[in-house]
Amino acid sequence: MDDLINKLREVLGDDGVLSSGEISSRACSYWDSSPLRARVLLRPRSTAEVSAVLAICHGQGAHVITHGGLTGCVNGVEVSSDQVILSLERMNAVEDIDPIGRTATVQAGAILQTVQEEVAGHGLAFPLDLGARGSCTIGGNVSTNAGGINVIRHGMMRDLVLGVEAVLADGTVISAMNQMLKNNAGYDLKQLFIGSEGTLGVVTRVVLRLRRASTSLDTALVALPDFAAVCHLLSQAQSELGDNLCAYEVMWGDYYRAVTAPGWHRPPLDRIHPFYVILESRGVDVERDSERFLALLQRELESGSVVDAVLPKSEAERTSLWNVREDFEAITIHQPTFLYDVSLPIRHMQEYIERVQTAVSQSWPEGCCQVLGHIADGNLHLFITPNAAGSQLHVDVDSCVYSPLSDYGGSVSAEHGIGREKKGWLEHSRSAAEVQLMKTLKRALDPANMLNPGVVFDL
Amino acid sequence: MDDLINKLREVLGDDGVLSSGEISSRACSYWDSSPLRARVLLRPRSTAEVSAVLAICHGQGAHVITHGGLTGCVNGVEVSSDQVILSLERMNAVEDIDPIGRTATVQAGAILQTVQEEVAGHGLAFPLDLGARGSCTIGGNVSTNAGGINVIRHGMMRDLVLGVEAVLADGTVISAMNQMLKNNAGYDLKQLFIGSEGTLGVVTRVVLRLRRASTSLDTALVALPDFAAVCHLLSQAQSELGDNLCAYEVMWGDYYRAVTAPGWHRPPLDRIHPFYVILESRGVDVERDSERFLALLQRELESGSVVDAVLPKSEAERTSLWNVREDFEAITIHQPTFLYDVSLPIRHMQEYIERVQTAVSQSWPEGCCQVLGHIADGNLHLFITPNAAGSQLHVDVDSCVYSPLSDYGGSVSAEHGIGREKKGWLEHSRSAAEVQLMKTLKRALDPANMLNPGVVFDL
Repeated sequence: MDDLINKLREVLGDDGVLSSGEISSRACSYWDSSPLRARVLLRPRSTAEVSAVLAICHGQGAHVITHGGLTGCVNGVEVSSDQVILSLERMNAVEDIDPIGRTATVQAGAILQTVQEEVAGHGLAFPLDLGARGSCTIGGNVSTNAGGINVIRHGMMRDLVLGVEAVLADGTVISAMNQMLKNNAGYDLKQLFIGSEGTLGVVTRVVLRLRRASTSLDTALVALPDFAAVCHLLSQAQSELGDNLCAYEVMWGDYYRAVTAPGWHRPPLDRIHPFYVILESRGVDVERDSERFLALLQRELESGSVVDAVLPKSEAERTSLWNVREDFEAITIHQPTFLYDVSLPIRHMQEYIERVQTAVSQSWPEGCCQVLGHIADGNLHLFITPNAAGSQLHVDVDSCVYSPLSDYGGSVSAEHGIGREKKGWLEHSRSAAEVQLMKTLKRALDPANMLNPGVVFDL
Repeated sequence: MDDLINKLREVLGDDGVLSSGEISSRACSYWDSSPLRARVLLRPRSTAEVSAVLAICHGQGAHVITHGGLTGCVNGVEVSSDQVILSLERMNAVEDIDPIGRTATVQAGAILQTVQEEVAGHGLAFPLDLGARGSCTIGGNVSTNAGGINVIRHGMMRDLVLGVEAVLADGTVISAMNQMLKNNAGYDLKQLFIGSEGTLGVVTRVVLRLRRASTSLDTALVALPDFAAVCHLLSQAQSELGDNLCAYEVMWGDYYRAVTAPGWHRPPLDRIHPFYVILESRGVDVERDSERFLALLQRELESGSVVDAVLPKSEAERTSLWNVREDFEAITIHQPTFLYDVSLPIRHMQEYIERVQTAVSQSWPEGCCQVLGHIADGNLHLFITPNAAGSQLHVDVDSCVYSPLSDYGGSVSAEHGIGREKKGWLEHSRSAAEVQLMKTLKRALDPANMLNPGVVFDL
């Protein structure tokens, strides 16, 4: 057993340090079921232990890959057999909930859904929500600046974090556990650790901003004749529901038809329409909120901008509607299928999608392109199944999706991040000066390139 | 005329470069009417010109102080006679408003109120609002992460900025003019320039996030018997008005009595109460929003947690109510009066204020301590008039206000920033490791310590 591992065992004890043999029964990630391989996996129980083990790794020049819930979509957690995994799995406590200040103090390994549920027990809500809620961790949400389905109303993870504790590569603890909405005493250092994908420090604890729990909940799935109607309904919903509008999830017709094909989800509406939208409203005035929601739908149905609609009559029916949006196994069962996560201004979306669809069908006549998105956030997800093979396939499909973006000021990643998968395309969305400044930050905080090396960019 | 100024004139022309003689008719700032003195004042018209003049200054080792609206409260714009002023006064255009994507692209020298008004012309709102709205600039709002009266609903300036263009000390342009709500392509570099008080770069252009304009507006000034009632009403208002609650401004009784003393504002309510609150609601359902607002007040009046209330019957009457909150000349006319801007969790506020009041009255028996605040944001403003003299006075009053904060996890600056005035107290709110990391960032981005040297901290 090598010297590094001896030192790590002194800090973490035997059950805090798992050998390569002990982790081989674990999967690499949600997306990759092959056996996990690494030099060692560390399971600290506190920020002090994270600090101690990073200082040891720093002293020995070891590369450290931080693991949360392993649900990320951009291959940010890949590890090689000579690297150290730092897992936050034993730092999963909800330490404190303050109902007056509306904050929750949690450890980075806490599961998102656990936090949502504990907070709900206090009559409050933590509004970040995404399909991976049952597995993803708060630390991962911070590191990737997670988005999801409520961004239209509550913003990204960055908007929901008041304080962060993080450990730098050399073991220095930066404890910026601010609890106030306002704190302008010097630079807001937590911003460094939000969305930098674990490359500048390891997030260990977080102060979350909570909201009151809503009392009203109204949901509908509607069908629309064209993208102009989709934009019109969004605008009307924003005007008439105000801040109650908390989700506006658009599915292009081909996506809807794929996931409601025979054997998959039962179609809640006919499968013939060009567009489908799930819209959801939450507020504090049960009776009046439902009235407004129904009045909006009624009027848009009468005017023809909505052509059909269904409202769930139970929580089970509501879950079924959402499953159409969130469970896309009917698409990903066809391999290879590549998932994209781009953003661009709404006004360019239709033209952009037509360009991608044209490029895909020209290159792969049997290929499929399915689209859905949080359009109010400027965010589209594309599933592209070329129904073809070839060593250049992934690169060529990437090119179809990413190349047109620069014409619209778009981004190659809305919410998933860059990871290892997209780093070749980073300069497509960001200028050379911007990427240079990112590298300047990385060198200033982690000169040995020890934390998640090769994520976001290569130094 | 020195070589530096010759080179600067080549870039900016004669009217872009004002000599020390030409600027002596200008005041130093809103707070300091003495004549402005500096080596030279530069008035670039574009980001390219800012880049060119910073590169020249960098080459010659000149220190550059950036000037916006000069309304900051922490002496961040002080300049010495050998330093260069970079004024954004000619970069004041609202370049573009996108009503679909709900963004405004503005130059950093644009006045906040101008932006508010131009945006309103498109049926939209830019929700940042503060007393200095008629003078402060968007660039200053970004650099100081401005707060103000609508933070309870819409957040700080950081939450309202989608993109930033900034110029580094050496002239490198970082153009991160993102227009989307979601963009996780690499580090979010704009965060470096928000709230760092011009020490890491000069902000030249900004993409602002707009909101729909509200249609309903309800305002009240209420009187309350104690701080528990103030917290109770806040909680009730948050539950029953939901996100419509956009302002909750608390005035301690002594503040209210000072600004409504004979000869100053007419008191809208009797001057006998311990606490006063202005609450304001904005929504999209005119009739129902007013019903809810009135029902809340009615019930709280009946239960006795609100003891008196007044509702403005016209916009003029509403302005009069707000003037009681925003115009505090009745206090600052007594010199010296020191203004503070602290934040701490609500649950500690009453105890904290009692400690400060006790310390002030023990040290200065004739002294006054007037308090008001955005309490939902954790933010209190204190005016302390010692009615005494002495060279140590400011330092001693600072100590009364700041010393107890560390017991409550509080901050020496909620929204005004550190500037030069509070830098001696920075480590009172932030750990040594945090301050060290701030200095690491400063050295990485501005190794020559050229931009706003001595602001936030000394290197």
